[in-house]
Amino acid sequence: MSNSSEILTHLLTRDTPSPSPLTFSFLVPNLTGLSAATSILRQHPTSFETASQRATPTSKKTRKPAIEVAVFAAATESFSQRNLNCSIATSLSRFNEVISAAREEADVRVRAYISVVLGCPFEGYDVNPHRVAELATDFLEMGADEIALGDTTGMGTAPRTKELLNCLRSAGIRNEDIAMHFHDTYGQALVNTAVALEHGIRTFDASVGGLGGCPYSPGATGNVATEDMVYFLESLGMDTGVDLDAVADIGAWITGEVGKPHESRVGKSVLATRLRKEQEASKADA
Amino acid sequence: MSNSSEILTHLLTRDTPSPSPLTFSFLVPNLTGLSAATSILRQHPTSFETASQRATPTSKKTRKPAIEVAVFAAATESFSQRNLNCSIATSLSRFNEVISAAREEADVRVRAYISVVLGCPFEGYDVNPHRVAELATDFLEMGADEIALGDTTGMGTAPRTKELLNCLRSAGIRNEDIAMHFHDTYGQALVNTAVALEHGIRTFDASVGGLGGCPYSPGATGNVATEDMVYFLESLGMDTGVDLDAVADIGAWITGEVGKPHESRVGKSVLATRLRKEQEASKADA
Repeated sequence: MSNSSEILTHLLTRDTPSPSPLTFSFLVPNLTGLSAATSILRQHPTSFETASQRATPTSKKTRKPAIEVAVFAAATESFSQRNLNCSIATSLSRFNEVISAAREEADVRVRAYISVVLGCPFEGYDVNPHRVAELATDFLEMGADEIALGDTTGMGTAPRTKELLNCLRSAGIRNEDIAMHFHDTYGQALVNTAVALEHGIRTFDASVGGLGGCPYSPGATGNVATEDMVYFLESLGMDTGVDLDAVADIGAWITGEVGKPHESRVGKSVLATRLRKEQEASKADA
Repeated sequence: MSNSSEILTHLLTRDTPSPSPLTFSFLVPNLTGLSAATSILRQHPTSFETASQRATPTSKKTRKPAIEVAVFAAATESFSQRNLNCSIATSLSRFNEVISAAREEADVRVRAYISVVLGCPFEGYDVNPHRVAELATDFLEMGADEIALGDTTGMGTAPRTKELLNCLRSAGIRNEDIAMHFHDTYGQALVNTAVALEHGIRTFDASVGGLGGCPYSPGATGNVATEDMVYFLESLGMDTGVDLDAVADIGAWITGEVGKPHESRVGKSVLATRLRKEQEASKADA
């Protein structure tokens, strides 16, 4: 598999056809990681949408990909220690430097992930939503553009998703600054998405074929499948801009390539239905 | 696998330990099917709860299993023809005889299934909810005790589930007389369950390990898994009376026995978590 630098170079040097602009997140654990991204971006200064361009409503809209850097903190001390090898406080002071440099030197947007917000493999279900709201506030004050709330373990339930989002609202955090990142480990991802939609959240992460997982979160399976998320949002009358048939094909292909189980119920059903129709058509022809 | 007559005999002749009374549905396509059930019931007249006993609030509560017979109609003509080999009207006149005989001669409750209420493999998504409400009304007037609305294809979405239930409410059908029977083919079963719960429905069908499907509904995979349904309802603070750990074991065992994929995300996650804890404990002991 390609690493982030290779993918970034690819996006900046080749025209990637897409009906809507793409955003690529470059994960940066520290200033060294940011330097790697910045040096690539400086080689192709006109090939991406900068944070300043995006923030200016009068700027000419381009089809350039948007590039953002992503930092990754944890909502519990145990997960921070195992995942980042440092306390939450230490991780925040590192990210503060990264975020400032990203905004001032590289002029890219910053996405800040907070993981295990609805359940921790080491501390259980009772992750403090007020602690999550504090972390989100810290990140926004540092200059992060978006907070991605990660239910890394898939332990999130509908009532606790609601409680968390209410807590963030009480802390003055706007829905536009929040993205939800659900895992479908316990089959609750779409139910929790429904709760977040009702709350007013409109940005959701997903992964083709349900790929993913977390090496530091034992037993955690993949993110909610893009196919399932798109089908659900479209069923509610929302326009995702995603071609479900095409994504179903990609899901079957990529899970085969990496040798992982195909975890999208929608993807498998879309492909099974298409195959059955083709077989019926070929029978009718014969 | 045992047939319905063998299972019924088993339930009536052996003490099946259960913390809450069991209900067994005996599927009867016609009067011949009902005779088979009735003759077994007459051999063990004191071993089950009759419809009259259940209906009498003052009768002494027993631990006997409740036995009911089930009839199975379709919401679309195409599905009725392929599944029952007759029109909907013909199926209703047959079921009318069965339901009368079940109530009057066998004194058992009757559950009436209506299949493909939210999508038909032959007629598509646009199943008429008013037609479903008419069928449900017909069944209740014939004497059925409960209407099970089957989303046989899993094509049901949240808005159309809501529309269907609103339609039944407008037709004067009470929530207590409705059970929802969702399939998770497109991963929407719990989302649709949430819609039905909000509407006031409290009876939901599910299948251990997500087993099931429908031979007359091409591509239809299993019912929503009992494990997923129980986890979801308990997450909302509801008491299902079901031991999730025990059901997860049964799901893994039965899917292995019948050689079908284990489709419960909750069941697989519960078992994986338990295994990991056992391994950690045995490492700590060593």
